[in-house]
Amino acid sequence: MIYGISATFARPFDEVLDDVRQALAGQGFGVVSEVDMQATLRAKLGVEIDPQLILGACNPSFARRALEAEPSIGLLLPCNVVVRGTPDGVVVEMINPQTLVQLTGNAQLQEISAELMERLQSAMATLRGA
Amino acid sequence: MIYGISATFARPFDEVLDDVRQALAGQGFGVVSEVDMQATLRAKLGVEIDPQLILGACNPSFARRALEAEPSIGLLLPCNVVVRGTPDGVVVEMINPQTLVQLTGNAQLQEISAELMERLQSAMATLRGA
Repeated sequence: MIYGISATFARPFDEVLDDVRQALAGQGFGVVSEVDMQATLRAKLGVEIDPQLILGACNPSFARRALEAEPSIGLLLPCNVVVRGTPDGVVVEMINPQTLVQLTGNAQLQEISAELMERLQSAMATLRGA
Repeated sequence: MIYGISATFARPFDEVLDDVRQALAGQGFGVVSEVDMQATLRAKLGVEIDPQLILGACNPSFARRALEAEPSIGLLLPCNVVVRGTPDGVVVEMINPQTLVQLTGNAQLQEISAELMERLQSAMATLRGA
């Protein structure tokens, strides 16, 4: 997957989810939105899928800089972090912020994107060590 | 802007926001997340920006199909719709779902993306006529 980074964990879903929140907080990201895909598809379609949460992670300082560089960047914010159950374990995926540069073509976002990537990778490293 | 479609309205912010919700609902999109960027930056940084809401629009049938075609697509869901105040009026922006294909390189998402784009464009047309 080129648009995100990913790791799989053998621990219980709720435990991984708690660790994800802590690891993101440790890098200055607040979770500003949360979509429960399993509950949504169950409620709207009567379909069962594995547990899947889409967390919107926002580092306010980065968001502000991004908005100054690219007024429409809200279309690509916050940074999504997915936690989902699979037969192989609990998969945690984080968006590759390079997609912000790729989609906008705005070189001013390059530095922000690289710094965001470092922080998300650090959060993932923390998770792997948790 | 190549990653979204946009329109500007001379009506009050809250009126446009209500119209956006109705126009999205008319195309089968529920708003499953909502990030108030103005409130977030005010609370976390003490910075004032113009009103800006990032709505996460989800059409459950499309989301299900997308997840079946691309298990990691949650990283790019839901479809963001931004409503923000500017000196020129209230700007409404909707993500171009073609970005799903562009970022994943998954041709199976082509049809879903095209259908989503039609619906978002219809919602925008409704807004323009509102």
